[in-house]
Amino acid sequence: MSRNVIFRSTIDVELVKGSASDLDVVFSARVSTEGERTRDHEAGELTDKEAGLINFLMRERHGTPFEHSYFTFYVNAPIFVWREHMRHRIASYNEESGRYRVLDPVFYVPDENRKLVQTGKTGAYTFEFGTDEQYAITRVQLYHTCQVAYSAYEEILAAGVAREVARMALPVNIYSSAYVTMNARALMNFLSLRLIAEDSQYPSYPQREIEMVAEKYEDIFRKTMPATYAAFVKNGRVAP
Amino acid sequence: MSRNVIFRSTIDVELVKGSASDLDVVFSARVSTEGERTRDHEAGELTDKEAGLINFLMRERHGTPFEHSYFTFYVNAPIFVWREHMRHRIASYNEESGRYRVLDPVFYVPDENRKLVQTGKTGAYTFEFGTDEQYAITRVQLYHTCQVAYSAYEEILAAGVAREVARMALPVNIYSSAYVTMNARALMNFLSLRLIAEDSQYPSYPQREIEMVAEKYEDIFRKTMPATYAAFVKNGRVAP
Amino acid sequence: MSRNVIFRSTIDVELVKGSASDLDVVFSARVSTEGERTRDHEAGELTDKEAGLINFLMRERHGTPFEHSYFTFYVNAPIFVWREHMRHRIASYNEESGRYRVLDPVFYVPDENRKLVQTGKTGAYTFEFGTDEQYAITRVQLYHTCQVAYSAYEEILAAGVAREVARMALPVNIYSSAYVTMNARALMNFLSLRLIAEDSQYPSYPQREIEMVAEKYEDIFRKTMPATYAAFVKNGRVAP
Amino acid sequence: MSRNVIFRSTIDVELVKGSASDLDVVFSARVSTEGERTRDHEAGELTDKEAGLINFLMRERHGTPFEHSYFTFYVNAPIFVWREHMRHRIASYNEESGRYRVLDPVFYVPDENRKLVQTGKTGAYTFEFGTDEQYAITRVQLYHTCQVAYSAYEEILAAGVAREVARMALPVNIYSSAYVTMNARALMNFLSLRLIAEDSQYPSYPQREIEMVAEKYEDIFRKTMPATYAAFVKNGRVAP
Repeated sequence: MSRNVIFRSTIDVELVKGSASDLDVVFSARVSTEGERTRDHEAGELTDKEAGLINFLMRERHGTPFEHSYFTFYVNAPIFVWREHMRHRIASYNEESGRYRVLDPVFYVPDENRKLVQTGKTGAYTFEFGTDEQYAITRVQLYHTCQVAYSAYEEILAAGVAREVARMALPVNIYSSAYVTMNARALMNFLSLRLIAEDSQYPSYPQREIEMVAEKYEDIFRKTMPATYAAFVKNGRVAP
Repeated sequence: MSRNVIFRSTIDVELVKGSASDLDVVFSARVSTEGERTRDHEAGELTDKEAGLINFLMRERHGTPFEHSYFTFYVNAPIFVWREHMRHRIASYNEESGRYRVLDPVFYVPDENRKLVQTGKTGAYTFEFGTDEQYAITRVQLYHTCQVAYSAYEEILAAGVAREVARMALPVNIYSSAYVTMNARALMNFLSLRLIAEDSQYPSYPQREIEMVAEKYEDIFRKTMPATYAAFVKNGRVAP
Repeated sequence: MSRNVIFRSTIDVELVKGSASDLDVVFSARVSTEGERTRDHEAGELTDKEAGLINFLMRERHGTPFEHSYFTFYVNAPIFVWREHMRHRIASYNEESGRYRVLDPVFYVPDENRKLVQTGKTGAYTFEFGTDEQYAITRVQLYHTCQVAYSAYEEILAAGVAREVARMALPVNIYSSAYVTMNARALMNFLSLRLIAEDSQYPSYPQREIEMVAEKYEDIFRKTMPATYAAFVKNGRVAP
Repeated sequence: MSRNVIFRSTIDVELVKGSASDLDVVFSARVSTEGERTRDHEAGELTDKEAGLINFLMRERHGTPFEHSYFTFYVNAPIFVWREHMRHRIASYNEESGRYRVLDPVFYVPDENRKLVQTGKTGAYTFEFGTDEQYAITRVQLYHTCQVAYSAYEEILAAGVAREVARMALPVNIYSSAYVTMNARALMNFLSLRLIAEDSQYPSYPQREIEMVAEKYEDIFRKTMPATYAAFVKNGRVAP
């Protein structure tokens, strides 16, 4: 009668829609200096001068021209990732509701690519792979807890109690999905804080699972706005 | 040698680009209740059930599903309009810069459709048309001032002084252009405060010239998101 | 060796500090009409005219004068409450971190004052008390789950695995504490959405536990800014 | 009958009120690591460890602990300064209204300390003092324009036309006053963009008159939150 509990180790990010391009950066920035809507070409490669303008804006921290490009993502990730994600306030969210629907028994567990052991002091942790035993203990404990928790959820629901009460039993590694809309400036801020990159001016220490979201965002961002992405990286991944 | 001063009585609004539709509202809202990215049809008419969902969201003030739709406008308006417009903080702006370029001698004057005389008490003013003499005085004084001011601007520039200093002479009715990006929720907030409408739950008393901007925004909004616009009007033009 | 699990049914809210008063609303609003910093009296009762001005601002939705008053709260609440709270983006948060510290085994369970059974359709639920059996099942299941989950958390930690991994086992009813700073305008928005009140112009259907936070915020707000609170209630609890 | 026009070359900033201190940064940050409201001492000097924590937060760009400290300023500045100031959206404003009151004839003119001549290319201008003749031309032209403009304003008002129409004649160097509330994080962002400082990691090129506002903000900030200010400067004046 009770549903099978499913375990996953990946996170899904899809680009639902967007209105984002390097040219939008160029055209909006040119309003400052030309006072007109000069949109002389609609597509194709950026000229060197245009790419140079984008690099200038990034370097001089003129952030507003990057706000006219938007991305809407559909993301499926564990709740502990959403808890960190939603601290980014310059974004729009619509998340699956445990008050309106019965949540599916899908839970996150780290796989063997996820480093488990933390060393170093606060704010500058590094992570290392664990022993086989450490992976085994982590998985066994998470599997057991999730099964007990989801079973409790089902029992409480079966007794006729509201979904919003029953969900209190569910652990933070349960998956939840949401629409996320961010402009390119906010997205660069997200990437600067949630990705580990050697070429960063300011190192960050994100939890691996939100970094997995950031890696997928970065991939979409690089393909959609290649000159902006190149300027971002060139300038030390400091969001303008 | 000095440039001719031009007077205008209109305000320009163009939709540069957008990613806005009633379906985006529906699909993002459904994540709450279905937890999936159900995007079963891409275009065409909304079903009655979908239009009903939009009306429900508006009435219950579930504002976030309206945040995934974006509009980028190019607007050419006098500075006194921009001063009010930029008080709307949930928006992105790139405006023509008087530090980077010499501003053109184009100034706003009210035409005979613009009511000139204010009656009533603070916060509930009504406006009436003026006499011919009132229109004449207004125009003559504005014409004269703008000519003197622009001439001063040119004289200061001609002396080799910086543009950012010379512009101090220019009056607030000089035109300036900007890119403005807003999501549909912020746009409804703008319309609720900057339009006079008999079917508003809460009356507003905007200055006529920003209402002229709002009228053009409203027209674009109605065409782009007809079901959302209808629900907005039906629910007393209260932004969710 | 393992820690005792503690269950609670209350939520704590303290006012850490604030700079909030009805007079600040009056003085900031007067800048609009008088252009000066008139701060003719520093304390004591508001005059009738001053209370009338506050009511006017609320009714006409002039929201900005309410933004100069600030509250900093210290709140201890379950994670499922924080998940809703942090959707309010016009606020500042510093929350306890499960990456930096071992979380304490304190969990929320509904007591007998918490209605358990939901009736009615989406968006307009009402709640009723449950049977003794429903309360018993809810508690037993939550007790059992929390004990299993916290034990798993301890086992994973004991194996030398990072806190940020071990916490994945913990359920959303574990308590977490945070500093929350909001201005009076954002606070009224919070109250309008998170409190059930018969005198509301727009009914809301918050989960009971975030309403418990809102009730404590409301109490502090009423004492600190009595004229603003009175105007808020008088105008249908619509945030300006 | 017409009012005398007054010219000034300074900008006024007063601290109206605040709830800002280094200790608030420390106490809010400690919630992350200690999960409790540890407020062990209320005043007095920071310990070295506390100052070190503030420096750590600044360096690692943990910005949120700086958001619980607030400043409310009363500022009297020309409109062209307000135009730039209000582009800072993480702030609250209440400004004098030319719709509600007749504006006073007080105008800004640069004095001999204000460099007038701009050299260099876009985005990296430097300024030099002008010749006596350049100062003379600037002043004469501004004096003349302001007198003509204010006289036009008075004539239009005298004809019974609304204040909101008459003000269209007024130049952007007329003074206007406002309440401005910002938290310490937003204030550091303002300072990083609006002050020229040799110890800045990222140079800025603000217009001199908004820098005059920033200098006064900086002075108040340094006195109110000395350890935070020291950490800001030490870390290259990069806002966290």
